[in-house]
Order: sequence, then C-alpha cells, then structure tokens
Amino acid sequence: MSTISAYAAKSKDGKMQPHSIQRREVQANDVLIEILHCGVCHSDLHAIKNDWGNSHYPLVPGHEIIGVVKKVGRDVSKYKEGDTVGVGCLVDSCLSCDACDEHLEQHCLQQPTMTYNSKTQDPGGTTYGGYSKRIVVREEFVLKIPENLDKAGAAPLLCAGITTYSPLHQYGVKKGMTVGIIGLGGLGHMGIKLSAAMGAHTVMITTSEGKAKDAKDLGADEVLISTNQDDMKKWASKFDFLLNTIPVGHDINPYLTLLKYNKTMCLVGAIEPLDSVNGAMLVTGRKAVAGSFIGGLKETQEMLDFCGEHNVVANVESIKMSDINNAFERMEKNDVRYRFVIDMATLD
Amino acid sequence: MSTISAYAAKSKDGKMQPHSIQRREVQANDVLIEILHCGVCHSDLHAIKNDWGNSHYPLVPGHEIIGVVKKVGRDVSKYKEGDTVGVGCLVDSCLSCDACDEHLEQHCLQQPTMTYNSKTQDPGGTTYGGYSKRIVVREEFVLKIPENLDKAGAAPLLCAGITTYSPLHQYGVKKGMTVGIIGLGGLGHMGIKLSAAMGAHTVMITTSEGKAKDAKDLGADEVLISTNQDDMKKWASKFDFLLNTIPVGHDINPYLTLLKYNKTMCLVGAIEPLDSVNGAMLVTGRKAVAGSFIGGLKETQEMLDFCGEHNVVANVESIKMSDINNAFERMEKNDVRYRFVIDMATLD
Repeated sequence: MSTISAYAAKSKDGKMQPHSIQRREVQANDVLIEILHCGVCHSDLHAIKNDWGNSHYPLVPGHEIIGVVKKVGRDVSKYKEGDTVGVGCLVDSCLSCDACDEHLEQHCLQQPTMTYNSKTQDPGGTTYGGYSKRIVVREEFVLKIPENLDKAGAAPLLCAGITTYSPLHQYGVKKGMTVGIIGLGGLGHMGIKLSAAMGAHTVMITTSEGKAKDAKDLGADEVLISTNQDDMKKWASKFDFLLNTIPVGHDINPYLTLLKYNKTMCLVGAIEPLDSVNGAMLVTGRKAVAGSFIGGLKETQEMLDFCGEHNVVANVESIKMSDINNAFERMEKNDVRYRFVIDMATLD
Repeated sequence: MSTISAYAAKSKDGKMQPHSIQRREVQANDVLIEILHCGVCHSDLHAIKNDWGNSHYPLVPGHEIIGVVKKVGRDVSKYKEGDTVGVGCLVDSCLSCDACDEHLEQHCLQQPTMTYNSKTQDPGGTTYGGYSKRIVVREEFVLKIPENLDKAGAAPLLCAGITTYSPLHQYGVKKGMTVGIIGLGGLGHMGIKLSAAMGAHTVMITTSEGKAKDAKDLGADEVLISTNQDDMKKWASKFDFLLNTIPVGHDINPYLTLLKYNKTMCLVGAIEPLDSVNGAMLVTGRKAVAGSFIGGLKETQEMLDFCGEHNVVANVESIKMSDINNAFERMEKNDVRYRFVIDMATLD
C-alpha cells in the first residue's frame, strides 16, 4: 500500500504550505500512525530556515508526534490498531553498534535516522516529519503513550520532555537534592516539572523577574534571579545539579559558581560556542560541564511512563495548521507558554 | 617540645634561602617526620613568585614529602618511629563536613589546610612545607609509603601522582579502554605510567614529536601528535577518557573531537581561562569537560598502595637544596624529565 497524504512543508516563499509527498508502504515491522498532535520545537524553525546548513526541501518538520495506530505490519508485536502512540526525534538506527546496544540510539555509530530532514538507513531515502496526517515508523521507534495523559500536552514530551528528563535521570536527581533549572522556555518548563516530580528541591534560575510566578506555578520551589549578585552569592556552592536550557552561547562561569564541589552542570540547549570557561573553577572545584542530547528509546519510554505515573505533561497552546507561520513568529519572540502543538485535524 | 629547624624559604631577593621558623610541638595526634626527599612542583614556583596573589612570606614550599617517623604523639595508632611515610598537599581539614565525610578533604567546606602557605585550622597559624628537615602533621594526613618503592621517586606521587590517579580512578580506567594523556610534563608522565598500569591502551597526545620516544619508554602504547590533522581525524571519536594535563589555558575543542560519545575529558592542569568551548560538541556528543583536584587521603593511600603493587614511581632528577634556584629556572624552560626531587640531607 502506498499512502499519499497532505503535509506542511516549507515552500518557495519560505513559509509552510500544504504539500504532498509519497510515503513508504507499511513493511513487516512498521506501524502506520494517524497523527493527532505535533509539537512545534525550536529545531523545526532552525530546519526550515536552514540555520544549520543541512536542510533539504521540501522539508516537513515535526518530531513531537502523538497519534493513533491505524495499521501494523505482519511482524509487529508491540502495537495494535487503536493504540495511542508517540514518535520522537528518532525513527531508525542500525540497532547493532555499541551505542545502540547501550540503548543510546541517538548516538548510533552508523548515524541515527532523525524524524525529518534525515537520510533513511536504506540509501536514497529522506525522512519527513510530523506536520502531517500520517507517518510510518518501524515499531522499535514507536513509543507507548500512557492513556491518562492529555494527548496534546504529551506531544512535547517526545523532544522537550526527553531532552530534560535524560540528564536529570543520568545524574540521579532525587529527593534531598537541590537542582537548578537555568532558562525558562520550552525545555526549562519541562525541566522544572520533571525535577519537581523526581522530588528534588527545584530552583528556577532566570534573568527575568517576570517569569518568577510562572516558575512557581510550574512547580519550582524557589526562583533565583541570576542578575542579582547578592542572590547569586547566597546560592554559591548550593546546587547538586544544574540543567542549563539556555539555547544560545553564553557565559557559563557564573552558573558554575552555584555548583557544589564534585557536581555537574549539563547543557541541553546551547549548541553554539560558549564564552571562555574558567578552568580553575572546574579543576579546584572538581566540577564538570556536560552536554546531553535527547535520549534513547528505552529511556524515552521510561520518561513517558514516569510522566504517566506523575501526570506530567507540557503546558501547551493548541494551534491550527494554518496558524503555523504566525506561531513561528511568536516563537522567535519567546511569546509562547510553553509549547505550541498543532492539532492535526486542522490539516486538510 | 618545640623544634627549630632549617628551611628553605623565599627571602627578600626573591630566591630561596635557608631560614628558621618555629615549628609546633608534637600534639597527641601528631607525627614528627624527618624529611628525606621533597619533590619540586610547579605550584611551588607559582607560590614563591606570588603568581596567585595569595603568598605570605617567609614561604616554605614543598608538598611532595617522603620521610621517616621520628616521634609520635600519645594517641597516634597508625604510625611508629622508623616508618617510611609521606605527606602530600593537605595537612588538615575539619574532618566533619560532608566533603570530609566523603573522603574528599581537599574540598573541605571549612577550607582544607594546605601543606604550605595556608592557614591552620587553629586560627592564627600558617603552614610551612617540605623544603625542610622536619615536619609535624596530624596522623590522619600522613600516608604509608610502600617499602618497595624508591623513596626519591615516590615523592612526586604525593602531588603529581594523586592528581593524575584520581581522575583515572574516578572515571573507571581499566583494561579494554583507550585513554589519552594530553601533555607530557610532570603530570603527564605520571598519567601515562598510571593509565598503563591500570591496563588501559594508553595514548600520549602531544604537540611535540620529540617527546614520542620518551612517551613510549614511559609506557605509552601509541603517540598522537596533535598538530597532525590527519592523525587527529584518524583518532576522532576513539577515546574512552582523556586526561588533560596542559598547565595553561588552551583550545580544548580539538581534543573533544577525540572522545567517543558519552565520554569525558578531565582537566588537571589548566587553572586559567580556556578558549571558547563548542557547546554543540558537548550537547550532541553527550560529552563532558570536567576538572579534578588532587585527591582525598583515602584515595591517596589507595594510589600509593596501587603504585607499590605495580612498582610505579616518578622519573626524577635528585638535586641538592643549594641547586633549587637553578632547578626552578630549568623548570620554567620545561627542562626536567620529569620531576626534580630535593635530597633533604643536603639542607643544613
């Protein structure tokens, strides 16, 4: 069966427009998903603008996908028609290298296949993402969505959720720890919710006093305004872990002063050069600056199950497909609290 | 009993000269050590030159001390007269904070007392180091030296040894791993020996082709010349751990490319600002840049026992006390392979 469906792809005028691309047939291990909701990630905007220089058009973004199973291949055992499922940033990998063996498919040594604008494992193909009515994905890369979760709110868990859950999980965040979440955007708001759900004393660290109330509503126990030098001194050496969601290059040294000895700040947003780092602070404090990149499939399923158990979803603003260009403009002005999610019923 | 002994301290002309300073009496928990050998660490030179702005004169450097026990206080149980012992960078700490409870006395929350140029835990005192005939140290900060080790060669284990052993140990270096040691000086040469003794495939990473033979003699399995771009590409993503001993600020990004996904480079030398770090490499590769600072007493003893078991000591050039100013000059020109050690019998 070949499926033709409507997509929203970037067209010649630089805007997203309905588009049609032939989709692959459902193979033995594939799941055909009717997409209900797709989150709008900042990466989508970078991709359609070719900010990273690797975009191929037509480009269909979207890697925060919630849908319902419509058909499964003959060898599929985990899913059946009618299941609520999700697809995140990954749709394939070699599944046989060291990284895949460690359940870190995002670091597949043969290159993982990302959900859109990516080469398929079979040479010659390109992937198209979730701004679409349907998607076909091999079952290993399909995730179960707990039935109690709001479906639109669950969409951003597939990228923003796992991006923040993974480092919190890697660094053993739990009750008794003091955790700082730096930056309150799509990632930061998930960081607060997840850190609080893990039981940590969670502190929102932001330059913006205007975000203090929101941060507390999201679950932060305290707010630290990082431009207030007295408060920064008060919090020096107090944190067991810092999750830094700032999406641009910046000076990380003031944040490093907040860490206790032998602790780590993990970056998930800044994929740009950082200002000069103070080596003395790392050495004499036995501190670390680490990075983390989404998560593997096993950890993503664990995150979804954790969110089901704690009823954690993103705060979202549901939009129509036709609102996408306006949504991108608002996203560029940080005018979203905290994630746009497209209602795919609105895509004709 | 009060002990007056000769020291080499920095005097008015900026050179090291014999000097006399009153030493404290042996308290109930103290060990009086006759010093046989004291290593010459680059920190000693920084301290006498007040490079870090915190030097108080007269200043007696030296924190790589090997000696023999001459007297013990009434409550000392671990040591007796005649034991071969060592003293490293630390001589006291509060022993009751979280860091001390974790055996990380170097990060004591009340400030550890360093072996020289440091405030004592009792207010008003100052410590004087190992360029001296004798030292009095509380027994918790005295280390057992395995009898099979060459005493002069063992002296640098107390600083250069633990500084490199601790990160190798923290990051679980063992057989089957590929470990890079960056920079071949006092620290780097210990890094090679220890990594090789731990069973790792050990690669010396240096800008200097002239150091290749030495590196192999020290135990390196291979040498990577970091200015050779082809070799750097060949080694991309090959390392399980990197120990960076470069003692000045530098561009760490080329080294980060050498790490496998999810691995760490640990800095032990660069206590200066580092050039801008590529956030994308940290994030998308799930890599980390960490620091490490000497080691706690428990780990230092483990290191000494490990060195005893594997017969690892530093390569040293023994000097007379009267040669110290010349040794400092040579050290500034990197003209030492790989550590000067003062024979304290030569100090009158």
